[in-house]
Amino acid sequence: MHPAVLIQKKRDGHALTDKEIRFLIEGISNGTVADYQAAAFLMATYFRLMTPDETVSLTRAMLESGDRYDFSHLPGPKVDKHSTGGIGDKVSLILAPLAAACGLVVPMMAGRGLGFTGGTLDKLESISGFDVRLSREKFAECLKRVGCAIIGQSETICPADRKLYALRDVTGTIECVPLICGSILSKKLAEGAQVLILDVKVGSGAFMRKKDEAKKLAKALITVAKKSGLACRALVTNMDQPLGNSVGNALEVIECIEMMKTGTGALDLKEVTIQLCAHMLEAGKVVKTLAQGRKLALEKLQNGSAWKKFQEMVEFQGGSLKQIHDPSLLPRAARTVEWKAPKKGYLVQMNAQEIGQMLVDLGGGRRQTSDRVDPAVGFVFHKKLGARVVAGDSIVTAHLPTGADADEFEKRLWNAIEIRSERKSVPKLISDVI
Amino acid sequence: MHPAVLIQKKRDGHALTDKEIRFLIEGISNGTVADYQAAAFLMATYFRLMTPDETVSLTRAMLESGDRYDFSHLPGPKVDKHSTGGIGDKVSLILAPLAAACGLVVPMMAGRGLGFTGGTLDKLESISGFDVRLSREKFAECLKRVGCAIIGQSETICPADRKLYALRDVTGTIECVPLICGSILSKKLAEGAQVLILDVKVGSGAFMRKKDEAKKLAKALITVAKKSGLACRALVTNMDQPLGNSVGNALEVIECIEMMKTGTGALDLKEVTIQLCAHMLEAGKVVKTLAQGRKLALEKLQNGSAWKKFQEMVEFQGGSLKQIHDPSLLPRAARTVEWKAPKKGYLVQMNAQEIGQMLVDLGGGRRQTSDRVDPAVGFVFHKKLGARVVAGDSIVTAHLPTGADADEFEKRLWNAIEIRSERKSVPKLISDVI
Repeated sequence: MHPAVLIQKKRDGHALTDKEIRFLIEGISNGTVADYQAAAFLMATYFRLMTPDETVSLTRAMLESGDRYDFSHLPGPKVDKHSTGGIGDKVSLILAPLAAACGLVVPMMAGRGLGFTGGTLDKLESISGFDVRLSREKFAECLKRVGCAIIGQSETICPADRKLYALRDVTGTIECVPLICGSILSKKLAEGAQVLILDVKVGSGAFMRKKDEAKKLAKALITVAKKSGLACRALVTNMDQPLGNSVGNALEVIECIEMMKTGTGALDLKEVTIQLCAHMLEAGKVVKTLAQGRKLALEKLQNGSAWKKFQEMVEFQGGSLKQIHDPSLLPRAARTVEWKAPKKGYLVQMNAQEIGQMLVDLGGGRRQTSDRVDPAVGFVFHKKLGARVVAGDSIVTAHLPTGADADEFEKRLWNAIEIRSERKSVPKLISDVI
Repeated sequence: MHPAVLIQKKRDGHALTDKEIRFLIEGISNGTVADYQAAAFLMATYFRLMTPDETVSLTRAMLESGDRYDFSHLPGPKVDKHSTGGIGDKVSLILAPLAAACGLVVPMMAGRGLGFTGGTLDKLESISGFDVRLSREKFAECLKRVGCAIIGQSETICPADRKLYALRDVTGTIECVPLICGSILSKKLAEGAQVLILDVKVGSGAFMRKKDEAKKLAKALITVAKKSGLACRALVTNMDQPLGNSVGNALEVIECIEMMKTGTGALDLKEVTIQLCAHMLEAGKVVKTLAQGRKLALEKLQNGSAWKKFQEMVEFQGGSLKQIHDPSLLPRAARTVEWKAPKKGYLVQMNAQEIGQMLVDLGGGRRQTSDRVDPAVGFVFHKKLGARVVAGDSIVTAHLPTGADADEFEKRLWNAIEIRSERKSVPKLISDVI
């Protein structure tokens, strides 16, 4: 087999065999297929896509390039959630302990922020000492003792995916459904999940702007997951505004702690979390119906069980309990300013991507993977889409670093937000379950 | 400017600006754009193509990556020919001295064989001592004294093209019209040609199998050449059988010497050579009409002027005059065998690519650029398409190296040639002038 011949085969729109895909992925992994050939293959795949069978082969080849965790010795279904990424998407921080409190085992391997979307690991690392690099043994122990753990992808998990993802990032081949499927699912299979619930985001702050694109991705993920032996379903959820009230790493941790402590908070954040949990419980066969799942999840959120699990997880993973008991001890920005509505009307539109980009520009996100993140900066929104506001109402509290030009950022915010005299319907939070 | 952003722009079907293309080509040339980004860009270009303006920018950026020769101090129009490559295509060996004999200056930068097609440099190097690596000064002196010279692309000519071509070769991006245009034309502009006549081959032994593909390539080349300040026209010529009688490096040199010595030989080889020369003369304004060009070319071929120029060129470039005066001194294969027609009928079909591949498999061509070529091996055909044969007629004299399995190769030959009882029309030699 010659790499150039396989590249041409894909280029000409023919499906590659399992053997051919393995040859390429193994070769890319061990260096016998050159990076430039990998890049040409990725671009050819961008244009020609892959059949479900090819994507299964890709997923399996990436999975088998590294270690695979097996938690079958732990009682309880191993269930995970994956979000395609959005602004203010802090669901995992509540959902992992909540699902564990409901009896699931949640071996969550999460990511870092890049570009306009944030990452769960960055959020957790706002807590002093929180260690996302647990060894395989510690990860297993945390799952056994707590029921959940949130870690990063280690060097030995899907190394082929790490290499391919890094190449995709610099060759314009990120937005390609079969490559996305392979990347997500190989990791979920490697972490030992049996059930995967997907949160496919759609809207101004998501990679997918249109609902039919999001549904297409969801369907592809489900098809390939099932063919790979991973039970899977997907919720398509709206991302036309930040999820919850806060955007920024420590600020989002604070919002999650508040919700777990009090059982209440931003309605959209709570609803998405409860619904995802209900699906995890039903698909994991802890309950028989979604309604039962929803009831159980609500109960465990409101009776403090999720909060207890969260504390246990933070403790096990080395995070500061002091900080989570008193969130004012979490990293704080140099100063806060209130940005007030310049006129009355209804909040009808938010450019969530621009809000994510503003966070990056404040230092709270990454332009490049090597960037360091400032955990303290960000925004707390006091109004959501559909809200009626009068001139002078505080819309946002901005948490700014020393030296940031507040006026400049405020200008950008008012460009990203539209206040209009006529009310406009708010997009449905959960549009599809697939 | 970021390479990944420009790759995405091309991927999404947008035309790049001159500045953007220069940025990429300069970056690929000096290493600030990684090879994997170059490969992704090439594959995106394969799918999205380029506008004529983009291709002009590409051509100019590649041209300006290296040295540019200028022969404006030499009297006479600087005219070159380029063939897209075929089996037995030895035209340059006769055409360069013939055109020089007619008053043109022919600064020919030729290539080596790769895959099933041969290369002019390999053919000339069958002659002991023939040096295709003349310095710029020697090249200019040869043009001044002889009127023609045939050399290889030096390290300093279009280095960006060398790099891109090497990448294309291993990433499945050879067959892409704008990339082909850029590669050919940047070199022709660098060698100092003012007029370029293209011989675009079409048929079973050419890269282009279909006439409309060949015409499309010809038109693209002409458009980009003209926009780049190079007068250009194209002949679309048939390659459904080897051109002339011989295939193999030394054997082709012998055929050319015979034609230049006697003024006659295989009709197709002679006709293509004379027609190309006539167009060079007319486009170079040495004559007013094609008919005058044809007349002059025929005269100079038949009165021995081309043969004289060829000897001068060989002498200047260090080749053995002894060998060209007595071609039996050129490299000779270990043995020859006659392959005789197994039945009577008409020779109706030849798979010219397979004949080229047989030459490669005998060692007379290259699988990889690093391969060495055996100049002695090859085939001399005694019958061309349309010929009537009877069983036992010698169709081919095969010149084989020690150890070659003659039966195996003979079997391949009869699979590549069809003798049928009904006559079939022979494809037109020169189908279009564009």
